[in-house]
Amino acid sequence: MLTQKELIEYCRNADENYLPHISIDCVVFGFHEGIMKVLVLKMKNDEWYLPGGFVLKNEPIEMAANRILKERTGLDEIFLQQFHVFGDPERSKEHFEMYKDMLPAKQNWFANRFLTIGYYALVDFCNVNPAHDQLSVSCTWSDLNDVPKLKLDHTLILKSALDTLRLQLNYQPIGYNLMPKQFTMPELQKLYETILDKKLDRRNFQRRMLGFGILTRSGQPRKGGAHKAPYLYSFDLENYEAALKEGFKGGW
Amino acid sequence: MLTQKELIEYCRNADENYLPHISIDCVVFGFHEGIMKVLVLKMKNDEWYLPGGFVLKNEPIEMAANRILKERTGLDEIFLQQFHVFGDPERSKEHFEMYKDMLPAKQNWFANRFLTIGYYALVDFCNVNPAHDQLSVSCTWSDLNDVPKLKLDHTLILKSALDTLRLQLNYQPIGYNLMPKQFTMPELQKLYETILDKKLDRRNFQRRMLGFGILTRSGQPRKGGAHKAPYLYSFDLENYEAALKEGFKGGW
Repeated sequence: MLTQKELIEYCRNADENYLPHISIDCVVFGFHEGIMKVLVLKMKNDEWYLPGGFVLKNEPIEMAANRILKERTGLDEIFLQQFHVFGDPERSKEHFEMYKDMLPAKQNWFANRFLTIGYYALVDFCNVNPAHDQLSVSCTWSDLNDVPKLKLDHTLILKSALDTLRLQLNYQPIGYNLMPKQFTMPELQKLYETILDKKLDRRNFQRRMLGFGILTRSGQPRKGGAHKAPYLYSFDLENYEAALKEGFKGGW
Repeated sequence: MLTQKELIEYCRNADENYLPHISIDCVVFGFHEGIMKVLVLKMKNDEWYLPGGFVLKNEPIEMAANRILKERTGLDEIFLQQFHVFGDPERSKEHFEMYKDMLPAKQNWFANRFLTIGYYALVDFCNVNPAHDQLSVSCTWSDLNDVPKLKLDHTLILKSALDTLRLQLNYQPIGYNLMPKQFTMPELQKLYETILDKKLDRRNFQRRMLGFGILTRSGQPRKGGAHKAPYLYSFDLENYEAALKEGFKGGW
């Protein structure tokens, strides 16, 4: 917990440098070998939050999202996608209550109403080493099925990000930064099954995925193993990029 | 053009009632019998804008979007969907320049940087009668292929809304408020072709659309006409609603 003096200084600094009424919250999903996690911050007062922060007075919001994620978690160069603005007037009241005995209302940055812009990303969690900042005691990957109770409306923001990611699987490719350069169809299917949290039919998955035209099959099946060797695939980057922009060719 | 006195009063009122730095812009697409249009406002200074406005200090943003659309265009009860926040620090500079000779910077509401939250809707333009407010001289449907040059970044906002709508066709149903209660497959296809601005294959369209499970076929083909009568369909509202929430069953 910050001392009153630190808190006053924090608010003075925030008021001077950031746009009022606007915040950003980041939902970073981690995936590795069939496990889904999400990045959460434990603050000094033992409360859990998504990594978030504010927008500098003259900063593009995409830059703000990346700076915030870097400052709070140490993670750099993560492609964050904007997904929703949460604009309930009551959503940040909890913060006001928390600090109202320590700060006069006029000096209390947290007494403001904040709209928060949600960003999300999906990364290979083995490639990233989160670190915490001076406000928090830890920054950790939490199992998606066992996320601690989050403050404010961060549980809603997390759920909304997950819904967006799952819907996105229907019209955009995914996995380029998550799969090895070459992979088998069952390996790719495992990624989809993990995100969707359900089993998919093997043959339908293969037919549909090939129909999107974003995969190139290597001539050589993977070597070794007792069973019939599965074919190896890699992403056709040109078609992958086009599908990211315009949706799948399998679309209309 | 507002007089200086009116402008000062406008800014004083805005400062007192609205959240600073945040605006909302609405892209209302109109469709009727194979024609796509978009709603634009012509202001007193002969410049064109999307209908937009600001968020009251204690107003949920979804309510603000609907109030703004009603105030600027007379349209009520239109289901607006949030799609993107435009946060370039330079995006509203044009407004500052426009008023800087008439207003001292401190009293100039438009000197603020504004993030704008984009909302869009698709309606039957025959059912709505747009009206203009006291700031504008007309509120009209413009052909999508012949939109007048829009101020600020409103051309970008319009394009981004259209891209979102087209992408959305890949994973969500559309048309419930646009089609008659019963319709033929070619009529529904025409809606998709108009939004996408391209021809679709008749058989693929029918197969895919039926695969989504959101249509009910009536037993009776439409009567009259020299050719083989086409079957009539209606939306299965339960499945339609479910697909709106979770994406198509034809998804993963």
